[in-house]
Amino acid sequence: MPETATHPAPDANTAKLYLDDLQPGQRHVTGTRTLDADAIKAFAAQFDPQPFHLDEGAASRSFFGGLAASGWHTAAITMRLMVDGLPIAGGVIGAGADITWPAPTRPGDTLQAHCEILEVKPSRSRPDRGMITMRTETRNQRGEVVQLMTTKVVVFRRPGTWGAEG
Amino acid sequence: MPETATHPAPDANTAKLYLDDLQPGQRHVTGTRTLDADAIKAFAAQFDPQPFHLDEGAASRSFFGGLAASGWHTAAITMRLMVDGLPIAGGVIGAGADITWPAPTRPGDTLQAHCEILEVKPSRSRPDRGMITMRTETRNQRGEVVQLMTTKVVVFRRPGTWGAEG
Repeated sequence: MPETATHPAPDANTAKLYLDDLQPGQRHVTGTRTLDADAIKAFAAQFDPQPFHLDEGAASRSFFGGLAASGWHTAAITMRLMVDGLPIAGGVIGAGADITWPAPTRPGDTLQAHCEILEVKPSRSRPDRGMITMRTETRNQRGEVVQLMTTKVVVFRRPGTWGAEG
Repeated sequence: MPETATHPAPDANTAKLYLDDLQPGQRHVTGTRTLDADAIKAFAAQFDPQPFHLDEGAASRSFFGGLAASGWHTAAITMRLMVDGLPIAGGVIGAGADITWPAPTRPGDTLQAHCEILEVKPSRSRPDRGMITMRTETRNQRGEVVQLMTTKVVVFRRPGTWGAEG
């Protein structure tokens, strides 16, 4: 095992991305994840037990006009897609997010995250790391945006590249 | 059953809050929820499978210095506390959220949400509803803020109060 999970040994880390590898405009499209009505209801029962996330009949008479996933379920699935898809060294460590849900996620939807780096900012006080700002659109199989998110993510610098600045 | 879940019959709705009942400065403290290491790992395995959310050993050598819940787990628990605690007629329908995690959620933490209404805005185009802006601090048992969130929530007006404006 490496000494720290945030700075894995190079051999465990082939093709992993460090802050030094990232720049604004870079894009990444993740894999996909499909969710069904059972998954929507299971998440809702645990974290967001409102009728429009739990029951087709009540949902059809609600604001949503049919069963819809909790926005936090869409957010959690998006995180899974990003964790599986973005080879950031040390992991995807979010400091915060600004998030909207322009359209509901429905049973049978297949979600995919489209990520774009907006900003890359080395830390002034901590030379081993920095912060990137990333815009992530979560789209369904029809290309509709069900979630739009801007996140701040902590990213480490490549070991050995920042000693002189420390 | 009422005709629409968003406008339940009055008798099903005693003490429920409509937009007309809300104003800036109102506060609400929710119930609590305690989470253990198993809950943290179960959520992470499904939605955020990174070593610092899954394994105590790896977590102790990571950025977090010990097992920490996914921020999305903290967000989901906060939603549950709000859904259980806020008697908003028609439910808690979030349009978006701005969220930061100033401190990690740890195994054994007991979370509680402290909500304050910042703004109440009737819709211009849809007289039956409006939008409130709410600030929610999720605190642990030591009073530390583990999540700070500002949300926009759709809230309906009390039936019968808005006909003249439509």
